[in-house]
Amino acid sequence: MSDLEDLRLRMRAFTAERDWEQFHDPKSLLLAIVGEVGELSELFQWLPSAEAQRLATVDPLKSRVAEEMSDVLLYLVRLADVLGIDLHAAAVAKIEAAGERFSAVEVKGIAPTKA
Amino acid sequence: MSDLEDLRLRMRAFTAERDWEQFHDPKSLLLAIVGEVGELSELFQWLPSAEAQRLATVDPLKSRVAEEMSDVLLYLVRLADVLGIDLHAAAVAKIEAAGERFSAVEVKGIAPTKA
Amino acid sequence: MSDLEDLRLRMRAFTAERDWEQFHDPKSLLLAIVGEVGELSELFQWLPSAEAQRLATVDPLKSRVAEEMSDVLLYLVRLADVLGIDLHAAAVAKIEAAGERFSAVEVKGIAPTKA
Amino acid sequence: MSDLEDLRLRMRAFTAERDWEQFHDPKSLLLAIVGEVGELSELFQWLPSAEAQRLATVDPLKSRVAEEMSDVLLYLVRLADVLGIDLHAAAVAKIEAAGERFSAVEVKGIAPTKA
Repeated sequence: MSDLEDLRLRMRAFTAERDWEQFHDPKSLLLAIVGEVGELSELFQWLPSAEAQRLATVDPLKSRVAEEMSDVLLYLVRLADVLGIDLHAAAVAKIEAAGERFSAVEVKGIAPTKA
Repeated sequence: MSDLEDLRLRMRAFTAERDWEQFHDPKSLLLAIVGEVGELSELFQWLPSAEAQRLATVDPLKSRVAEEMSDVLLYLVRLADVLGIDLHAAAVAKIEAAGERFSAVEVKGIAPTKA
Repeated sequence: MSDLEDLRLRMRAFTAERDWEQFHDPKSLLLAIVGEVGELSELFQWLPSAEAQRLATVDPLKSRVAEEMSDVLLYLVRLADVLGIDLHAAAVAKIEAAGERFSAVEVKGIAPTKA
Repeated sequence: MSDLEDLRLRMRAFTAERDWEQFHDPKSLLLAIVGEVGELSELFQWLPSAEAQRLATVDPLKSRVAEEMSDVLLYLVRLADVLGIDLHAAAVAKIEAAGERFSAVEVKGIAPTKA
């Protein structure tokens, strides 16, 4: 069984055992994702940018970051399950589309701008 | 190969081909996750809560939602790669810890409150 | 003195007294905003949508919501100060532009869609 | 009239003229805030941290940043109106409480950590 499928089934069972399906409408799950992204952000907010990678790859910060990233992933997987979306297939399609949209030659070393 | 590992390798290659590793420090990737969560939120914000699930499981909305969820996942996978975090192992550990923290009997039908 | 100007000066003094200007670069302040929006989201995530307004206008939830909204506002005001942006003038310009973009007659009762 | 009060009344009128009160329940407004924070994040995500302040204080980026910050503020003001929260009073209370919690002497030059 694939990783994402494993997590999907674990979250589904976790939710069912607690009778929490009633709380898992899309807008609520989305706010839960936002909450976890917020907790992840709080771990990084005041770290000097140049040192963030080094600091977040050793404990205790690494473990805390892994926990918050897990929470984001678990709610994302749960939202996909509720909506019947195959996350792996969708992500593969998205990265292939991005590969065509951003020609490696044209954008070499240049971050796409949104401004 | 697992599907999270597949996405990790695809994002790593996509980034390297464009010489974009220089942009992928943790705080920048985190802001990219926030940007994609924001785009996902915009798809849902004005939908009536009771109809959001139904509306988001048919096209054109379903495809748009799948795209934005994919973007969140891809940047999350990329951040995990940059930090050397095994997302699947971390998520399994997190859901097992949550299983012990929230006894199925005690929280049956009751959403944990943060207030 | 205006409300926003009052908050701007209070945040500036609070920051200077603690020698925290060094942490207040734009990307860090933005992650702090995300962190506070996350805390606000956690207060609402599992509330039934139809009851959220009623529940959030009585204590203890109202006070908690007011605190997290304040944190969002304070970091937003601080970011504007760091960037030299007049938030009130910018917001008035934005709402006036939105008034022209979304004709009251054409969008009456219809939420703009992003899908 | 204070400037937050001015924005509150402008948003209230803007919403009423379009018959959009029906969309402005707290969870929906919160997702709208998330959407705008996401757009703001996209403006900053790939900027080098050390140059973000300089780049965001000149046009065209400064104007784009001011627009997205305005959107965050306007939805925040609208949410406060819907919940009957006095944002200025709440923010003053919050910063005064923070002043007592973080003694200027003890935290001088030290960012509070969440890890």
